Amino acid sequence: MRFYQGVNAATGELLAGSFPICELDALDEILGRAKGAFEDYQTIEFSKKGLFLRQIRINLLEIETDLIDRAHLETGLSKPRIKTEFDRTTNQLLLFAGIIERGDWLEISIDTEDNERLPTPKPDLRKWYIPLGPVVVFGASNFPLAYSAIGGDSVSALAAGCSVIVKAHPSHPGTSELVAEMVIKAGKMTGMPDAIFQHVHAQGFELGAGLVEHPLTKAVGFTGSFSGGMALQKLANSRPVPIPVFAEMGSTNPVLLLPNALKNKAAFWAKTLVASLTASAGQFCTNPGIMIGLKSDALDVFVDKFKETLSLEPEQVMLSSSILQNFEAGRETLAKLEEVEFVYCKTPEAHRHVSPSLARVNGVDFIQNPLLHHEIFGPISLLVECADTDEMLKVINSLEGQLTGTVIGDAMDLERFDVHYKTLITKVGRMIFNGVPTGVEVVGSMHHGGPFPATTNSYFTAVGTDAIRRFLRPVVYQNCPNDLLPLALQNKNGLGIYRRINGELSKSDVV
Amino acid sequence: MRFYQGVNAATGELLAGSFPICELDALDEILGRAKGAFEDYQTIEFSKKGLFLRQIRINLLEIETDLIDRAHLETGLSKPRIKTEFDRTTNQLLLFAGIIERGDWLEISIDTEDNERLPTPKPDLRKWYIPLGPVVVFGASNFPLAYSAIGGDSVSALAAGCSVIVKAHPSHPGTSELVAEMVIKAGKMTGMPDAIFQHVHAQGFELGAGLVEHPLTKAVGFTGSFSGGMALQKLANSRPVPIPVFAEMGSTNPVLLLPNALKNKAAFWAKTLVASLTASAGQFCTNPGIMIGLKSDALDVFVDKFKETLSLEPEQVMLSSSILQNFEAGRETLAKLEEVEFVYCKTPEAHRHVSPSLARVNGVDFIQNPLLHHEIFGPISLLVECADTDEMLKVINSLEGQLTGTVIGDAMDLERFDVHYKTLITKVGRMIFNGVPTGVEVVGSMHHGGPFPATTNSYFTAVGTDAIRRFLRPVVYQNCPNDLLPLALQNKNGLGIYRRINGELSKSDVV
Repeated sequence: MRFYQGVNAATGELLAGSFPICELDALDEILGRAKGAFEDYQTIEFSKKGLFLRQIRINLLEIETDLIDRAHLETGLSKPRIKTEFDRTTNQLLLFAGIIERGDWLEISIDTEDNERLPTPKPDLRKWYIPLGPVVVFGASNFPLAYSAIGGDSVSALAAGCSVIVKAHPSHPGTSELVAEMVIKAGKMTGMPDAIFQHVHAQGFELGAGLVEHPLTKAVGFTGSFSGGMALQKLANSRPVPIPVFAEMGSTNPVLLLPNALKNKAAFWAKTLVASLTASAGQFCTNPGIMIGLKSDALDVFVDKFKETLSLEPEQVMLSSSILQNFEAGRETLAKLEEVEFVYCKTPEAHRHVSPSLARVNGVDFIQNPLLHHEIFGPISLLVECADTDEMLKVINSLEGQLTGTVIGDAMDLERFDVHYKTLITKVGRMIFNGVPTGVEVVGSMHHGGPFPATTNSYFTAVGTDAIRRFLRPVVYQNCPNDLLPLALQNKNGLGIYRRINGELSKSDVV
Repeated sequence: MRFYQGVNAATGELLAGSFPICELDALDEILGRAKGAFEDYQTIEFSKKGLFLRQIRINLLEIETDLIDRAHLETGLSKPRIKTEFDRTTNQLLLFAGIIERGDWLEISIDTEDNERLPTPKPDLRKWYIPLGPVVVFGASNFPLAYSAIGGDSVSALAAGCSVIVKAHPSHPGTSELVAEMVIKAGKMTGMPDAIFQHVHAQGFELGAGLVEHPLTKAVGFTGSFSGGMALQKLANSRPVPIPVFAEMGSTNPVLLLPNALKNKAAFWAKTLVASLTASAGQFCTNPGIMIGLKSDALDVFVDKFKETLSLEPEQVMLSSSILQNFEAGRETLAKLEEVEFVYCKTPEAHRHVSPSLARVNGVDFIQNPLLHHEIFGPISLLVECADTDEMLKVINSLEGQLTGTVIGDAMDLERFDVHYKTLITKVGRMIFNGVPTGVEVVGSMHHGGPFPATTNSYFTAVGTDAIRRFLRPVVYQNCPNDLLPLALQNKNGLGIYRRINGELSKSDVV
């Protein structure tokens, strides 16, 4: 058996602990067990599945300090940031426990029969949602807790009733392993099928490809780079039986800087946006990678303040040396372009560290060069300076699909630039007014998704309770005897939830 | 300009009227107009869109007789059958008009802000669904009204707020043209953008491919063959910006014949299933192409009765000569297989006509030969005779994804074969108890979809009000001033609909 070790992100030193590399020939057994566990899991009632998720949280709370220490070493992210992520992860377990227990996510719809109808009787139809089967989740490098072993993908798949196989991200194997142990322990404590949650380690692409291609895999959750997500999507589409890949592949998250807001609060917005850009060394899918403004004195003031604030930012460690290299390569590509001017760019003093950057380009050049539209993952933003409002609209129209868009503007700005921000809305999954794109709420109204290339499927969200939908599909029972129906579909509204009955939401029994 | 004519399905004679073939070089203009119309359509209120759909219905009612006559000639389907389809089509227009007007489909979700929350304030998030953009709809050969010019795909796309380009099916161009004229007229009468609905004619694959590949196309609706659907899906996935193809590609719709039911009602079920198999010459996606029973005297009685009933069935005209040829080729492939026995198969006496068939195979052979699992579009069913209940379960496990499954069984059967029919449910989109798979209700609880290869996306339905979801995606407004929000998302519940507020459905205003 081969093993590998975690690496200290700040120093490059190997960390304690070694992790067995899962080989391709193990996949038949792993997926076979996942299928068996999936089938057994269907017989377990919702309330017990809720207890399972609650127990995972309890187990995680017991190792909180060790976990945060390890994650800090492996990712270079600050401990306060990881603590925030830890809280999000544990809260999310509670949230989904509540969701399973309530059952609203079953989206029950009932149309009752009418035997008198002519020319043919109307049948009784009862629709609900069932889980897809074993789901493969790829740990995300930038969220060692909230998008890894028991992050948003895993918890929503388990809540949906799927079994889960996590491929740990090789840049934080120890963190992933610690979490996985707690999940597996919680499964045992609450009587879940043994293989309801499996956790494998690997470096490179081969094992991930094998997981996606395995005939028993029914869906895939992924958060990461465009090239990574598209490679998985291509594999999934080429299977004899294609499966959905829910890939969240990042975004440049354009920010519209409107003139009055800049005139009145240039310094405030410069500071606020620098904080958003540099948080966690810019390693958020939602960090403001593009800002769009009108050439003006106010914009110059904003730029000066932005530059000044950037210069005060400490150097930070990036998640891994490969992410750092990619960032540096992306920045260098930009620097070589004649049309791009670097407003601020400093070579970091410390090894394996990064400094934030601001670059500038005019609107016409931005529209013409597709390179400038791609995300550079890390703390760099590109300011697009538009000659006038028409050019600004053209810049917005040239943008690709995005996770988020942001508009900074006062009431007069929003009236004057009505068409501009409304056009931006057609490109994004979430539109922020006078705020920053970073920071996502894990609630029902969140949508962390957006048109391609931000994701592979703009209908679904990776964050929030509606994330459960990705791992479900509808099934209808037609004229099924009442006592053979699943409890939730029977005449009596056993779950006490809203059901759509003959087109109207109701908590009544069917009579 | 090139033209082509419709063909009398029963005689092969050319029909009156000739239709201009749309050339590839016209697509930029067509899609450009569709995009413009889409944008204008967004400014039109829901109630006016409802009026548009209602007016289409009124216009269709005015040409009912001519339309049914023409559809009968072009498709060979009986006039009563086409009348049923006409009613479904017009009712569906009313249904979707009501759906748009009510607004439930917006699935509004609101989480309110909490500025006191620590460590960071909770933002105000409001989610609803917006339309995708221009949608390309392919007319279906087997539903000249309900799945063609203004069938389920077009009406749900228009209801969602998309503009629509229909590619008429070349086997019923006259029918499609008559309908399209009424849709376009209704658009003018109710003040819709000119190009909200466009209708093009073509033979062959080229124009359809061009429509799917055009950068301004945002989604595709298709009902037809597996090879056709997969060809479109492949094109859509290969675009620089992939788009969803909602393809319903047919199914064998397995029917489980359980022993008690057969013992008690063999003749009844034989007659009932023959009627389902032969309706409209077997040209339904949901016709019972596979039946699965246990080797027994009761099954023999059923088979005899089935055969006898088949022999009384009149010959029928198929939709087109190519569909007839495909059917004959499929039946011949089956006939050449040693393991397949034809219980009933008659060469039709009339030219361009078809007779129904029943073939039989044992369970082991069925499992081993993938050919036997594919749909043969037309009036043929394959009876899979299982040696015992174990083999029956293996047969069920070997099935591909299906639109429907059916179980024929009394209470004791359903108890004894509990695992069997529940396993079948995991393969299908709709499970029918003691009925037939043909016939779909256009209601909220319908699901006309299912796992691959029945469709390209098991989450969505092609029939019923939830079909609208295919052409939508969510968008969130974060911290948007109340007066700038779309009316439906404002604090006041202007539409008077249920909205999910902080996780609970409510018709209240947000306070």
